[in-house]
Amino acid sequence: MTRERLYLYDTTLRDGQQTQGVQFSTDEKVQIARALDAMGIDYIEGGWPGANPTDSAFFEARPETRATFTAFGMTKRAGRSAANDEVLAGVLNARTPAVCLVGKTHDFHVETALGITLDENLENIGASVAHLVAEGREALFDAEHFFDGYKANPDYALACIRAAFDAEARWIVLCDTNGGTLPDEIGRITRAVIEAGIPGERLGIHTHDDTGNAVAGSLAAIDAGARQVQGTLNGLGERCGNANLTTLIPTLLLKEPFASRFETGVTGEALGRLTRTSRMLDDILNRVPLRSAPYVGASAFAHKAGLHASAIVKDPSTYEHIDPGLVGNARIVPMSNQAGQSNLIRRLADMGIAAEKGDPRLAEILDTVKQREAEGYSYDTAQASFEILARRALGQLPTFFEVKRYKVTVERRKNKYNRMVSLSEAVVVVKVGDTKMLSVSESMDETGSDRGPVNALAKALAKDLGPYQAAIDDMRLVDFKVRITQGGTEAVTRVTIDSEDGQGRRWSTVGVSPNIVDASFEALLDAITWKLARDHAGQANAAE
Amino acid sequence: MTRERLYLYDTTLRDGQQTQGVQFSTDEKVQIARALDAMGIDYIEGGWPGANPTDSAFFEARPETRATFTAFGMTKRAGRSAANDEVLAGVLNARTPAVCLVGKTHDFHVETALGITLDENLENIGASVAHLVAEGREALFDAEHFFDGYKANPDYALACIRAAFDAEARWIVLCDTNGGTLPDEIGRITRAVIEAGIPGERLGIHTHDDTGNAVAGSLAAIDAGARQVQGTLNGLGERCGNANLTTLIPTLLLKEPFASRFETGVTGEALGRLTRTSRMLDDILNRVPLRSAPYVGASAFAHKAGLHASAIVKDPSTYEHIDPGLVGNARIVPMSNQAGQSNLIRRLADMGIAAEKGDPRLAEILDTVKQREAEGYSYDTAQASFEILARRALGQLPTFFEVKRYKVTVERRKNKYNRMVSLSEAVVVVKVGDTKMLSVSESMDETGSDRGPVNALAKALAKDLGPYQAAIDDMRLVDFKVRITQGGTEAVTRVTIDSEDGQGRRWSTVGVSPNIVDASFEALLDAITWKLARDHAGQANAAE
Repeated sequence: MTRERLYLYDTTLRDGQQTQGVQFSTDEKVQIARALDAMGIDYIEGGWPGANPTDSAFFEARPETRATFTAFGMTKRAGRSAANDEVLAGVLNARTPAVCLVGKTHDFHVETALGITLDENLENIGASVAHLVAEGREALFDAEHFFDGYKANPDYALACIRAAFDAEARWIVLCDTNGGTLPDEIGRITRAVIEAGIPGERLGIHTHDDTGNAVAGSLAAIDAGARQVQGTLNGLGERCGNANLTTLIPTLLLKEPFASRFETGVTGEALGRLTRTSRMLDDILNRVPLRSAPYVGASAFAHKAGLHASAIVKDPSTYEHIDPGLVGNARIVPMSNQAGQSNLIRRLADMGIAAEKGDPRLAEILDTVKQREAEGYSYDTAQASFEILARRALGQLPTFFEVKRYKVTVERRKNKYNRMVSLSEAVVVVKVGDTKMLSVSESMDETGSDRGPVNALAKALAKDLGPYQAAIDDMRLVDFKVRITQGGTEAVTRVTIDSEDGQGRRWSTVGVSPNIVDASFEALLDAITWKLARDHAGQANAAE
Repeated sequence: MTRERLYLYDTTLRDGQQTQGVQFSTDEKVQIARALDAMGIDYIEGGWPGANPTDSAFFEARPETRATFTAFGMTKRAGRSAANDEVLAGVLNARTPAVCLVGKTHDFHVETALGITLDENLENIGASVAHLVAEGREALFDAEHFFDGYKANPDYALACIRAAFDAEARWIVLCDTNGGTLPDEIGRITRAVIEAGIPGERLGIHTHDDTGNAVAGSLAAIDAGARQVQGTLNGLGERCGNANLTTLIPTLLLKEPFASRFETGVTGEALGRLTRTSRMLDDILNRVPLRSAPYVGASAFAHKAGLHASAIVKDPSTYEHIDPGLVGNARIVPMSNQAGQSNLIRRLADMGIAAEKGDPRLAEILDTVKQREAEGYSYDTAQASFEILARRALGQLPTFFEVKRYKVTVERRKNKYNRMVSLSEAVVVVKVGDTKMLSVSESMDETGSDRGPVNALAKALAKDLGPYQAAIDDMRLVDFKVRITQGGTEAVTRVTIDSEDGQGRRWSTVGVSPNIVDASFEALLDAITWKLARDHAGQANAAE
């Protein structure tokens, strides 16, 4: 059976930039465009040339891509020709092979928001699309508020998209702009459009997540016949965001009936980079990745329930809908105090640590985890701290270095300009072999702002570890979480730190103490120790 | 037209607790159960009595609710009677009016995970449900892996749920346990179940979000005939989470075809508390609320695109699928603060502060709040810090004292017994009138344990405030929350402190800084200032 071609259209750089708090730089846009191209996306919408300086600069700087680069704009205004509309000219000046123009299709909006006649609007659509085609561009018409418009006045909504179709738009994109249309209705209306004579292979779908149904709405439109689907990485976008391509892509490639019906530009190999691509975007945005994100979230294949965890050990398919490796993600069986020895052995094996059933040290590990969880530790999220604990119990953790003492000072006083400023300073003394190293750092960042005592400690600790320095130079702290919790009978502070290295590995460690600085220090120590232990284990294996 | 009754079943306290990193205390479970009951949820599943000490303790302490309290457990094991199964007995011992038992319906799981015959499993289901009914409980059967089971062996999957139905289970809950079934298939299989003779008014639906379709799958099952829907607040739950009730509830109440077809226990007034309930849960979990969450997210009605924002001013329905007020949320549009002023006057009146409409200082207060919230402050929970900000702007805040400088040291080293110990010490210098006061404190508590730098600072700050000392002597710090959040473009620490005094007053203050010690100090200062300002205002009023 021949599979039909389904086209993926990414609008991370345009609609995704409408996310509250998101503002990409030109360099970031270039980086994202490259990642989208490597993923095998068909169309990359880069922004609205002429609308703001960043978007214009990006089109000057845009990278060469296999994907069709697309500029976004709006249909010409009434009372002038398409060639004489300077906003439209600004869009065409970006010289992209494809141009997508938004236009109204809901009578209410034509009359209320634009204040023009229904016929003027039809003329704007037809003439604008015809102008794109005459200029040799692939033309896309973004049918704004199409579903709401169709519900209010189906004849007019259809007349609008027919104007674009007759002017030879390659794609007519049906937009659920306000995000309020449920999947069934999206499917039904898309079918009606096809029955009215616009073929499915000319239709795209653009949904928003205001009812939590953006992905389902897109699938419903594809099922009805649309052959282009629009969305953004990690579901960025205005309000609740656009359809999440990071969710849609694996669904289309791995789930029936889609997997055997359609072909996209995304290869299985590219799919295996999906998790990394998703994390890269969060990294650019300095956002904490959503643990619960479908397919790519850190928790997406985490099995906490006791019944699930023990079955997973027998056969992962018992509680997993896909193999996590297909999307570049990994299984996590958290070490909770309910987990038994077979889970533990399995978990250790995943970390590259061999252990035999019945080894008395396994019971010791489980006891330690239980006791520490009672003290306020949580190993659910801090897999790396768990690994250190296990390696230590199994005699597989060399003593890389020893911390002899540290001292942190936080001071706030008036500076010479009579302004209150604060400064933190940390001194850390470690012993590596027989050598004692004394390091001092302060908490000032490049901008002269005080990043606090934990930052100063982290810098001092990582400043000089002698022979291990090279191994930790590419490490960086990417997230820091603090929670006041119960440790035995008293309140303690639990600090969880996420670290990353140059190889794209990411790991979490935990520290607990009534003293927040001390809890942070413990988590930092574990973070460095994990990196050294992994590198050490890697070398030991290579030497075998 | 009579509307059909649709039942809402919440499993935040059971499946929601399977979220990685989530562990509710008994008190937190009580607080959540009360909120669910106030929302009008029909069934509250409290956990698995007997499975762990926390769940057992909660059933002892569970609040009186209008909702049907439900205990979760599993069907009896093979080779014994239901009455002689001690796990099942543990569940029944919680004495809840309803009990939900999970059982296998997928032949593969019966043979692989349980290792029993298909017939034994049918007997386990039937006998367990019959036992619940004989004990006078409302019986629910949680058909684990039902959709996967039906796809693999429809006859056997149906036989399983028929065993529960014949034993008079009130509800048979069709579970997409692994979360991999797409909405269309959920709808199709639910229809097939009804055609096979299990009426829709006895069917529930339980979905997971592994393909981002948990809400859509639930809607598809309801559309097919299921009349109970299960989910969790904020979509907590194993892996990617359960169907999000915070999204489903407004969709069912406000969106067609559901709104006019169904009736639930949720009133319009309760719906108006939805955003607050969602935030309360995040608060308990110390999680940053998801800005893009449908309906309740801070960005759900934020209009960033220029075209959208200007149309919204003319008519909000142009770019909003519902009125945000219906779910207790608010529109965010970059524009004048006119709308805020009457709210502000009401809020100030609540604090005993009189202000006139049109006072230019009101606009100033709103601007300051907006600017500070962009820096990472949050006044939602820190009413006392907001009051100080407002009193200052209105010239109603005397300068009680001034902090000249402080210095905190945290040190960790070996003590004379060669054990690592830490100690914090704080020096604070304040000026009261013309008098300079120098105080020093260390962080050791009665038991000799180090409570950390913030504790030392709090003690030093409260040690000597001269004439104000008496007023703050009965103050104590009762809670301390730390959150890493976004302040402008960088991560900052937000500290919220709850204080209490001898009169039983409790108030919250906030501080923000990249430096956690500094953020804490700011919140501590506000806490003392609020107490002094209130006492001062009280005396001024008494003197009038």
